[in-house]
Amino acid sequence: MRILGLDPGLRHTGWGVIEKQGNKFQFLAAGTINPDDKLPLANRLAELFESLSDVIKLWQPDTCAVEETFVNKNPNSTLKLGQARGVVLCVPAIHKIPVGEYTPNQIKKTITGVGHAEKNQVDMMVHTLLKNVPDKIPPDAADALAIALCHGFQNIFIR
Amino acid sequence: MRILGLDPGLRHTGWGVIEKQGNKFQFLAAGTINPDDKLPLANRLAELFESLSDVIKLWQPDTCAVEETFVNKNPNSTLKLGQARGVVLCVPAIHKIPVGEYTPNQIKKTITGVGHAEKNQVDMMVHTLLKNVPDKIPPDAADALAIALCHGFQNIFIR
Repeated sequence: MRILGLDPGLRHTGWGVIEKQGNKFQFLAAGTINPDDKLPLANRLAELFESLSDVIKLWQPDTCAVEETFVNKNPNSTLKLGQARGVVLCVPAIHKIPVGEYTPNQIKKTITGVGHAEKNQVDMMVHTLLKNVPDKIPPDAADALAIALCHGFQNIFIR
Repeated sequence: MRILGLDPGLRHTGWGVIEKQGNKFQFLAAGTINPDDKLPLANRLAELFESLSDVIKLWQPDTCAVEETFVNKNPNSTLKLGQARGVVLCVPAIHKIPVGEYTPNQIKKTITGVGHAEKNQVDMMVHTLLKNVPDKIPPDAADALAIALCHGFQNIFIR
């Protein structure tokens, strides 16, 4: 089963694709989508839509997972993140791919065993569970792989 | 010039199409998109995307205008509205249609002359400026027509 993890953001949306074979996971690809921040908002969101559509067409995931947004104290930041998240959620659904959602704490707990794990602990576990992840992967891409792993583990427990 | 006004919302997104001929405006069509609220969030957003794409393909607007979101005191409401707004903004941009954004006060002021006009004053002016709007139009569709009119008036002043 091929899983796409997504960490939405207007400036940087992280994505990561893994293959689940039995109880094992294999890294396939990861990256970030960085829409041109000089463009008007609508065009930045359209660029995010089109780049994510390209990732889905290329990697053909069977299922997706998106991080649930941590509501920010700054309402303007919440609105910006919400706008990017709306686009990120709708793209896999348009392609008829089911979308799971997980809170940051669920992701941390599933990957490290601790809900309030530090970012570098999560990152270390991503590299431990997925042997061939490049060392210098962008942080948002590593987060997206953690989300994909969380989705993969949840499916193990469910089935 | 054909103008599409959009009032984004996850439960109801209002849309309204008008034709601007010189200094006069003609009503063409209006309605609301109401994604099935029993579906998962990603599928509701995909339904919004697809229905709005259908409106754009059918009415072929030259330009669009979207209400700028009033940041809500409730961060969860801001997030929900942000998600719908992200989808609504990206659809015209994907179709290469320019998108204007106006605050609620700009819209009220342009339509009625008063920035803090009551909702029914705006509604009355929509019916006055656009002769053939049906009486029993849904509120979100009337708001979308007000946004389209605001965009049309701004263009008069700019040119």
